[in-house]
Amino acid sequence: MAKARHGLTKRAYQARARVLREQLVQLQLTLKRAPFKVLLILAGPEGAGRGNLLNTLAEWLDPRGVETFSYHPPTDSERAHPHLWRFWRSLPGIGRIGLYAGSWYTETLREEARSKRALSHITADAGRICRFEKLLADGGTLIVKVWLDLSKESQGRRLRSLRADPATAWRVTDEDWHHHRIYDRLAATAAHIRRKTNQPGARWHLIDAQDERARDLSVGQLLLAEVRRQQERLRRRARSQAPQRLKSLRPSGLRRLRALRLDQHLSEKDYDVLREKWLGRLNQAVRAAFAARRAIVFAFEGWDAAGKGGAIRRLTSAVDPRDYRVVPVAKPTDEEKHAHYLWRFWRDIPANGRMVVFDRSWYGRVLVERIEGFCRDDEWKRAFGEIDDFERELTQHGTIVLKYWLHISHAEQLARFREREAAAHKRHKMNAEDWRNRRKRTAYEIAVGDMLALTDRDHAPWHVIPADNKRFARLEVLRSASRQIEAALES
Amino acid sequence: MAKARHGLTKRAYQARARVLREQLVQLQLTLKRAPFKVLLILAGPEGAGRGNLLNTLAEWLDPRGVETFSYHPPTDSERAHPHLWRFWRSLPGIGRIGLYAGSWYTETLREEARSKRALSHITADAGRICRFEKLLADGGTLIVKVWLDLSKESQGRRLRSLRADPATAWRVTDEDWHHHRIYDRLAATAAHIRRKTNQPGARWHLIDAQDERARDLSVGQLLLAEVRRQQERLRRRARSQAPQRLKSLRPSGLRRLRALRLDQHLSEKDYDVLREKWLGRLNQAVRAAFAARRAIVFAFEGWDAAGKGGAIRRLTSAVDPRDYRVVPVAKPTDEEKHAHYLWRFWRDIPANGRMVVFDRSWYGRVLVERIEGFCRDDEWKRAFGEIDDFERELTQHGTIVLKYWLHISHAEQLARFREREAAAHKRHKMNAEDWRNRRKRTAYEIAVGDMLALTDRDHAPWHVIPADNKRFARLEVLRSASRQIEAALES
Repeated sequence: MAKARHGLTKRAYQARARVLREQLVQLQLTLKRAPFKVLLILAGPEGAGRGNLLNTLAEWLDPRGVETFSYHPPTDSERAHPHLWRFWRSLPGIGRIGLYAGSWYTETLREEARSKRALSHITADAGRICRFEKLLADGGTLIVKVWLDLSKESQGRRLRSLRADPATAWRVTDEDWHHHRIYDRLAATAAHIRRKTNQPGARWHLIDAQDERARDLSVGQLLLAEVRRQQERLRRRARSQAPQRLKSLRPSGLRRLRALRLDQHLSEKDYDVLREKWLGRLNQAVRAAFAARRAIVFAFEGWDAAGKGGAIRRLTSAVDPRDYRVVPVAKPTDEEKHAHYLWRFWRDIPANGRMVVFDRSWYGRVLVERIEGFCRDDEWKRAFGEIDDFERELTQHGTIVLKYWLHISHAEQLARFREREAAAHKRHKMNAEDWRNRRKRTAYEIAVGDMLALTDRDHAPWHVIPADNKRFARLEVLRSASRQIEAALES
Repeated sequence: MAKARHGLTKRAYQARARVLREQLVQLQLTLKRAPFKVLLILAGPEGAGRGNLLNTLAEWLDPRGVETFSYHPPTDSERAHPHLWRFWRSLPGIGRIGLYAGSWYTETLREEARSKRALSHITADAGRICRFEKLLADGGTLIVKVWLDLSKESQGRRLRSLRADPATAWRVTDEDWHHHRIYDRLAATAAHIRRKTNQPGARWHLIDAQDERARDLSVGQLLLAEVRRQQERLRRRARSQAPQRLKSLRPSGLRRLRALRLDQHLSEKDYDVLREKWLGRLNQAVRAAFAARRAIVFAFEGWDAAGKGGAIRRLTSAVDPRDYRVVPVAKPTDEEKHAHYLWRFWRDIPANGRMVVFDRSWYGRVLVERIEGFCRDDEWKRAFGEIDDFERELTQHGTIVLKYWLHISHAEQLARFREREAAAHKRHKMNAEDWRNRRKRTAYEIAVGDMLALTDRDHAPWHVIPADNKRFARLEVLRSASRQIEAALES
C-alpha cells in the first residue's frame, strides 16, 4: 500500500488527482448522453500494481458507470461453449466503462508462464483476439489496452520490500517469485502478443509502473484522452451519401434464387410415411451428435408466411424437449439495440450436446436492417465478414451450423396472407408491416441473393428450400438436416 | 404422432381447437397490457405425451409470448451455487408464458426413479419448493401445475404400439421400459410430492392423458381459465387503506440503534498499523474460505454518506481482484422493476470460492421501498420472511453471509453533505433526493430498527458499525468480517 517515495510528491499527486477526478466524472456524464462502451484492459507483470490501480480508478470514477471484469480459468460449462462465448456474455453495458483486471489475454499469458503453449499457438490466439477486437471497435466500442511496464529490478525490489514488512508479507506468493525468476521469457512473450494485437481501434499503451502515483495519473489521463478522441471520432463519422442498399454485391445468389423450382408435389399419404422415416433418422443423427459432445445450431430465414414455424415444430418433434430450445428473434429490446448485433446470438449459443433453433437470426443484419436502412452501408457490408468469423468460431469449436432459407413465390405469399386474415386464430400473425415488406419483394430478393452468394460456406452451408408446398418443405428440412449432421459426424 | 382413435373425433377436436386457439391468442394480448408471469408446469409418466403437448401449445400460442424451459441434471457451475439459483435465473419475462417441460420437480422425481433419494429427503425438497412457489405466487406470478395422468396399462399399450411400428420404434428407449416396470413406485412418490406441494397459488391439476386430443384441449382450457382467474384476482386486490409504514413492528431494533456510541477515536498512525494487520488476517480468512469451496456475500447498507464505498474499497483491497465483484445496487432497471425484487440478487450470487459485495442490497425492500411507498404494506411485511428464506438458502448451501449497517449521526451526515457539495470531484455524489431522504431520518430509523430486530440471525448476523469516525468504521468492518469468516469455517 505504501506509495513509492521518489517521483511525484504526495501533495503534487493529490492536486493533480483532484482535477483529473473531476474531469473523469464530467466525462462519465457526457458518456451517458452519447453512449458507447469503453473497455479499459489492464495487463502487466506481478508487482506492477493492477489491484491498487483498480482501487484508485474505482475511487475516481462514479461507480454507477463502472463494471469490473476478471476471468478465472474457464469452468467446464464455459469450455463447453466456443472460446469467445464468456467474453461476449460479460461485456459492459452501453455508456459504461469496463475495467478489465483480466481479459482474453489472461489465459494466453498464464499458459505461457507454465510453458504450456507454443509460440505458434499464441500467434493463433492473437489472430482470434484481433478479429474480436476489430469487430467491437468497428461497432463503436472504445478499447484501451494498457501494459503496466515494470523492470525486473523494480519488480524484485517491490516484492522484497513487501516481504520484509510482516504486515504486508502476505501479499507476496510463491507464484510471484516464480514469475520473477522467468521475467525475461514472460516479457518477451508479452511483447510478442502486444505486437500481434496492436491494431487501429485497439492500440496498446505502455505505462511506466515504477512510480505508483505517476502510474495511476497516467492511466487516468489516458482514459480521459481516449474517450474524448472517440467522442470526436463518432461525431465526425459521416453518414454515407447515397445509400447503396439496393445494389447487389454479387448477383449469382439472386440467379440461384430465381432458378428454384417451386411447384413441388407430395401427397399427404406419402408425406405421413416419409415424415416418420426421416424424423427417426434425424433423431438418430442428433443423438449421435450429442453423444459426440457436438452442439447444433439451426438458423431459419425465409419470406413472411413461408412456414418457418411449422417446419421448426416438425423438426423439433424429433428431439427430446430437454435438449433443444427455440429462440424466436423479434425486434431487438432496448438493451439489445444498444449492444452489438451479434451479442444476443452469442448469448444463446448452445453448450456441447445441446441444440438451439433460431427462428430468424443474425442474418437480419444483411436483410431487414439493410433494406429498411436500420444500419449504415458500411455496417451491413462489413457484416458479411463478421458473420463469417462468427460461424467459423462456432464450427471450429465443433458446433454444427445449419442455415435454411424457406422460399415461396410472391403469389403463394399473397394466398397465405389472405388465409391468415380470414382465420381468427391466425390473424395475430399479420400486421401492416407484413404488407409493407411484401411490397419490397424485389429489394429483399437482392439482399437474400447477396446473403446466399456471400455466406454459403462448406462449414456452414445454406439450404434453400422450395416451400410453396408446405409438406414438401417440411420433409426437405428433415432430410437435409439429417444428412448435414451425419456428414459433419463423419468428417 | 398418431392420435388415439377412441374418444374425441378429429373433426370435433379441430372445431374446438380453433375456438380455443383464438381465445388463447386474445388472452395473450390482454396479458401484454396487464402483465404478470405465467408458469405452466408439465409433469407426468413416460408416454403421457409431454413432448406432443408442448408442440401443440407452441402451435396454439403466439410464440413471441412464450418461453420453453427444461432442465438437465445440474452442471458443476450450477452445483457451485445454491440449489434454486438456476431456476431463479431462468424465469420467463413479465407478461410471458413459461412452458416447463422440466422444472424444479424433475430432479426429485428422477432421483426417486433411481432409488437414490429417501422419502424424508423428498419431503425436505417439497418444503423448499413450497417456499419458492409461495414467494413467486405472492409476487403476482401465476403457477399452473399439470400432472398428466396415465394408467400403467395405457402406458404399456402406448409403448408397445410405438415399438411395433418401425417408423416410430426409435421413440421408445430402455429407460422408458424401466420406468414402466416400476410404475407403481414412481406413481406413489409422485402423488406424495403433489400432496406436499399442493398449496394456494400453486395447485396441482390432474389431467387425463389417455386421449391425446382431449388432453391437449383440457390443458389449453385450464391455462385459459387460470389466467383469467388471476387477472380477476389481481384486479380485486385492494390497496390497504391507511399505510402502516411508519409504525414500528418491533421497537427493540430502534433502541439498539439509538444506544450506539458514535464518538469513537482512532489516530491515523494507529489506523495505518492496524489496517495492514487486519487486511492480512482478512486475506487469510478469505483464502481459507475459498480453499474450503465456500462463497462469501457481503451486504452493505447505511445512511447516505456513511462511507460504504470507502469501507468496501478497503475491504476488497485484501482480496485478489479475480475473486470478487462489487455490485452497486441502483434503482431497478425496467427489466428488474418487472421481476421479483429478489431476482436481481439471485442473479449475482457468487459461485463457491468467489465473493460478491453488494453496495446496497435486498434490504431496499424494507427500507426505501417501505418508506417511500414503492410497495404495499403486505409486500414489505412479507419481505422479512422472504429475506430470511433467501439468506437461509444461501447459508445452507455453505455461503457465508455478512451484513453491515454503517451508522452516522444526523449532524455528521450534514457535515459530509456540505463537504461533498463543496468539492467538485464529489459533487456528482449528491442530488436533491439525498436532501429529501435526510429529512425523513425518523421514518428511516424506524425501518432500520425493524430490519435489525427482525432479520438478525445467527447464520446471517447484522454488524452495526459506528461510522462517524471513518477510520474506526473501516477497521471495524475488517475486524468483524475476519472474525465472522473465521468462525464460519470453524463450525
